[in-house]
Amino acid sequence: MELNQYKTQFLEYLSQKIDLKEPNNLYEPISYILNLGGKRLRPILVLMSCDLFGSDYRKAMDASVAIEMFHNFTLIHDDIMDKASLRRGKETVHIKWDENIGILSGDALMIMSYQMLETYDGDTFKKLFALFNKTALQICEGQQYDMDFETRKVVLLDDYLKMTSYKTAVLLACSLQMGAIIANTNEADVEHIYKFGLNLGIAFQLQDDYLDVFGTEEFGKKVGGDILENKKTFLYLKTYDLATKVDREELLNWYSGTSRSENKIKKVKALFNKYNAPDVLLYEIERYSLIAFESIKKLSIQDVNKDVFVNFGRSLMHRKK
Amino acid sequence: MELNQYKTQFLEYLSQKIDLKEPNNLYEPISYILNLGGKRLRPILVLMSCDLFGSDYRKAMDASVAIEMFHNFTLIHDDIMDKASLRRGKETVHIKWDENIGILSGDALMIMSYQMLETYDGDTFKKLFALFNKTALQICEGQQYDMDFETRKVVLLDDYLKMTSYKTAVLLACSLQMGAIIANTNEADVEHIYKFGLNLGIAFQLQDDYLDVFGTEEFGKKVGGDILENKKTFLYLKTYDLATKVDREELLNWYSGTSRSENKIKKVKALFNKYNAPDVLLYEIERYSLIAFESIKKLSIQDVNKDVFVNFGRSLMHRKK
Repeated sequence: MELNQYKTQFLEYLSQKIDLKEPNNLYEPISYILNLGGKRLRPILVLMSCDLFGSDYRKAMDASVAIEMFHNFTLIHDDIMDKASLRRGKETVHIKWDENIGILSGDALMIMSYQMLETYDGDTFKKLFALFNKTALQICEGQQYDMDFETRKVVLLDDYLKMTSYKTAVLLACSLQMGAIIANTNEADVEHIYKFGLNLGIAFQLQDDYLDVFGTEEFGKKVGGDILENKKTFLYLKTYDLATKVDREELLNWYSGTSRSENKIKKVKALFNKYNAPDVLLYEIERYSLIAFESIKKLSIQDVNKDVFVNFGRSLMHRKK
Repeated sequence: MELNQYKTQFLEYLSQKIDLKEPNNLYEPISYILNLGGKRLRPILVLMSCDLFGSDYRKAMDASVAIEMFHNFTLIHDDIMDKASLRRGKETVHIKWDENIGILSGDALMIMSYQMLETYDGDTFKKLFALFNKTALQICEGQQYDMDFETRKVVLLDDYLKMTSYKTAVLLACSLQMGAIIANTNEADVEHIYKFGLNLGIAFQLQDDYLDVFGTEEFGKKVGGDILENKKTFLYLKTYDLATKVDREELLNWYSGTSRSENKIKKVKALFNKYNAPDVLLYEIERYSLIAFESIKKLSIQDVNKDVFVNFGRSLMHRKK
């Protein structure tokens, strides 16, 4: 099945699950965020995984909705915490309504995501539940590390990788693993597919860091945006790590200011380049991708199905921005 | 077993479940709120119910922690929404830390409450999970209704009762029912004990409305506080319902102002009395209590165990404030 077909099936199913119940102020924001669009990457991963591990992908439908709901709950709350006013070009929930409604409808959406798991039974249900809980808590930890790092002067690269893996990669890994669990896959493959998702997710996030500075202007996202926002990305942390005292001071200086000039981007970029941070980053992206694809090789499924995972991974990594 | 013994056992168990993990800013607020004290009413209900339905109360320990964690998650988020700065005489989480940490540690605490249910298996687990989800969502709906009612001019008494039952009573009912489910109780009794909790919870909340105006000053809570805060309680709504046009105008007038004078309390109280709202309220409290105790009579357990439920209900209702 084509990725787009999973998406179509998912969207049709999702629309049946969105009820505009009372109280309106609780359920309208939920319907609003779930209908904002997006790639629907995570639910597609759930369905695809279940399918490729030899089961009827429709069995994974409720889990795919659970994952998408959980993801959207995190978006609502993260947008409040980050004081973001736009999400996919539309007003964020706490701007369109208010912060209280954002907090509460986010809470309700998280509970609804759990509710979607009520479909499952026995061992499958227990495994899905434990995985979902573990992942959900890691995502909260990732968000907290992210907020902590903003005010911390020194952040270790390892800590940064942990944060980024918790914030994003674990949910991709969880999505793939849920599909495998629903397909009643053997334990070894269940582990392999998790590692595929995790490492691919890390590679994907690191690529985000790279493309922010060296990508092409697209989707209205400004090149160099991370630099202007003083975000401690891989490039920054690596450069900070390697820089001489003088260069480190210059970097710190730029990152403590609020300048939004092209000159700031240019100067910081020059520092990144001086210490080969972009090359190190490209190497790391490649390394995590390779580890991810190694996990696919180990799967006990047919090669033709492995290829679908690999092609998906490649298409994810070959975006321009 | 005495109620206090359940509490002691619960507190000992809870302390083992509170880990000060990393990131600190996520888990410290959780430990803080869980250690703020309180009657621990809900976890006691879980343990007591399991015990009285003939099972080892220790089997219900994890469920009792789940309920207390969930309750405390709602406290953290409600305090943000209500802009409350004190909780049990101590700073609220979002004041002691900040709002972002309040939102996120609340989220994590909710997930941890679900995690506590991982202990259970098979049918018991499925039933607990569905009950927990349903209750959790009702609590969110109750909080949203409460916020909606603040700005709504007319609130029907039935809607008020639904709101108050969702905000508080359903969690008491859920606590009792979880204990019964864990004790593998027959379906009829599982329903009866839920209704006991629900109606007792409503009676308890209505009594809160009464004691706020006609109680004695205790625990530093001001008599007439609801009036000063223009809270649309049962007394207000009933009076509004019955009042002549002129008296209704006077009531609305008081409730649209910000006066915190003793005169406001006196005048509003006089209006309540003029329309016998306190008597109607006392009648309703009695009615819900009676319905609650009827459910206990229907249980198929020994009378000596029924008496414990009844005595608990009576002690809950015989507080002064």
